[in-house]
Amino acid sequence: MLKNLVQNDKVAQKGSAIASVAVEYYQVPLAEVLSDAKHGDHTHFELILCRIRCHDGSEGVGYTYTGGKGGRAIFSLLEHELKPLLMGEDASCILDLWQKMQWHLHYVGRGGLVSFAISAVDIALWDIRCKQLNQPLWKVAGGHGNTTRCYAGGIDLNFSVDKLQSNVAGYLSRGFNAVKIKCGKPHYKEDVERVRAVRDVIGEATTFMVDANYSMTVEQAIRFGRAIEDQDISWFEEPTIPDDYKGFARIAESINIPLAMGENLHTIHEFGYAIEQAKLGFLQPDASNIGGITGWLQVANMALAANLPVCSHGMHELHVSLMASQPHAGFLEVHSFPIDQYTTHPIQLQGGLAVAPDIAGTGVVFDDNLLRPHQVKLI
Amino acid sequence: MLKNLVQNDKVAQKGSAIASVAVEYYQVPLAEVLSDAKHGDHTHFELILCRIRCHDGSEGVGYTYTGGKGGRAIFSLLEHELKPLLMGEDASCILDLWQKMQWHLHYVGRGGLVSFAISAVDIALWDIRCKQLNQPLWKVAGGHGNTTRCYAGGIDLNFSVDKLQSNVAGYLSRGFNAVKIKCGKPHYKEDVERVRAVRDVIGEATTFMVDANYSMTVEQAIRFGRAIEDQDISWFEEPTIPDDYKGFARIAESINIPLAMGENLHTIHEFGYAIEQAKLGFLQPDASNIGGITGWLQVANMALAANLPVCSHGMHELHVSLMASQPHAGFLEVHSFPIDQYTTHPIQLQGGLAVAPDIAGTGVVFDDNLLRPHQVKLI
Repeated sequence: MLKNLVQNDKVAQKGSAIASVAVEYYQVPLAEVLSDAKHGDHTHFELILCRIRCHDGSEGVGYTYTGGKGGRAIFSLLEHELKPLLMGEDASCILDLWQKMQWHLHYVGRGGLVSFAISAVDIALWDIRCKQLNQPLWKVAGGHGNTTRCYAGGIDLNFSVDKLQSNVAGYLSRGFNAVKIKCGKPHYKEDVERVRAVRDVIGEATTFMVDANYSMTVEQAIRFGRAIEDQDISWFEEPTIPDDYKGFARIAESINIPLAMGENLHTIHEFGYAIEQAKLGFLQPDASNIGGITGWLQVANMALAANLPVCSHGMHELHVSLMASQPHAGFLEVHSFPIDQYTTHPIQLQGGLAVAPDIAGTGVVFDDNLLRPHQVKLI
Repeated sequence: MLKNLVQNDKVAQKGSAIASVAVEYYQVPLAEVLSDAKHGDHTHFELILCRIRCHDGSEGVGYTYTGGKGGRAIFSLLEHELKPLLMGEDASCILDLWQKMQWHLHYVGRGGLVSFAISAVDIALWDIRCKQLNQPLWKVAGGHGNTTRCYAGGIDLNFSVDKLQSNVAGYLSRGFNAVKIKCGKPHYKEDVERVRAVRDVIGEATTFMVDANYSMTVEQAIRFGRAIEDQDISWFEEPTIPDDYKGFARIAESINIPLAMGENLHTIHEFGYAIEQAKLGFLQPDASNIGGITGWLQVANMALAANLPVCSHGMHELHVSLMASQPHAGFLEVHSFPIDQYTTHPIQLQGGLAVAPDIAGTGVVFDDNLLRPHQVKLI
């Protein structure tokens, strides 16, 4: 029996050797300009796809995205550095390949752009695994369930109060029962007014978060946080720069609102410091920049051990399956970059919950006809 | 008088507006394969040049380098993301441009490859400033002096003991009185033997460091460190992964050799954590990946405040001026990547000290005739 297993394994290894890696770069325009406090205006997002095919014919698609900058460098890392490393490797050995990629680019890595590139590869490998198992990602990644709580995350700092109110009303009419808005206006009282104006529209029953995109000093964040404590805010996201773990702790100790961060932490070590030092209420890893599904699940495990809910940032069409899979999931962000509109399974809500796709693979299947017009050929 | 100053300033601003940014990519072969414990074999290094010209005709050259991977992505960041940002900006406002670049690429930055790209721009801006002042970098950056202690840093883990001994003997015959070797062999006793073999050759008077390139666990580093305590080792560099600040502290508390690190810390925040938590004896920022001269001087200031000597890693043809400029300089690394051999001012030693070039600018003037054969055109 053991002999058979070993033999099967050898066959599998030969079949699952990576035969090709294709990288594609897209610039996808947004329907309107979206703004936040520190990244400024977004006119489009970048999408970088990584298609991996094994000798046995199995195929997986992974991807990452940016707010509009750095995507060409990610393409370069995938095409020129990771593709040569991956050719011929066994696609089954996901964690080991993840480590190999990290070490291969360590001198220019340890987070930053390298984490984005590794993410695209890793997601493709998980897509292959799930397809080989003929199972959906929500089962393979944990299996807790196929639905998860979610919120609509607006990138709306440039919206007038009127437009902000109609925008969140639109979220409620689409079935959301939780919303997040941006803050970080030049004067904090304007932010307070916007929070109150939104609470007026959404009523007491709706879950409500705010996100400063690290635009405030610690003192500013404390002043603003205290001023909106009576608005039943579920979390205050990235009040100050993600590097200032102890500044986060000072804010957390000074206001009666839990803090959240994660989209700007790109190594598991950074999440380790944040858990230890920043007194967070929620962790928000993003599989597109924490090293894919492998990295996201590592952070989810760290969150479990630290008694913290795990959440997500961006790419909801993928995170819906990861979040649904975890027993300690917080809230899935349904992000304002509509990547899911270019897939065959746009996000679906049932009774305010987001539903994970029940198809074999990651559940993210791009519609090439929709994407093709936005492809930019780089080589 | 004030009016005159303001008028002059306006003229200067117009004149110092950035008119062009040219980016060049080189792959420079090494004379022999050089190996360390975690990066493996180096057959060449990558050099990415950034030439900035202002409307008044002033020009500066900046650069960064890698051990062979990621350079094309750095080129992409410079060409596609930073060049459009820089055009028309006032080259005089270095710190402000440094911050603008950091924020511009923050979502894909916070260290990693973005720090390499910013470094190349920043060094070019300092080159322009020094030329406008008609002064050498060692004066503009601090002016403590024009010489600095230095050591020859071998990348020699693949050398036999015989070759290792003859290699360090070669360093001494070239005028060095301090040497560093790699460690991180599969069994630590082999490392201990190599340390003893080198000490036999260099004698008691020579300063001697070791560098594990973060290949050891904390326990392995303590065992090895204790085994070489009797060899008068001046520092033990990167015993374990740079992310494990508290692991560094455990090693520092357990052995009688000071620890050093810095080449893999790419933000001032990471240096902040390291200073606070890692119980280091020496800081080793690298201007090619900490954000150029601006970033290196920020770390030098942090070292001064923390009562630590500041050192360097790589690109000695530039660091010689920065190290000489600082009152609290430790040892300049004269690195095994011979970038200086492609400049008009290769490193010079006098009485064991490295001498900073006394020419206006950073002191790094590339010899285009030597470099040209190694250029790879990317666009």
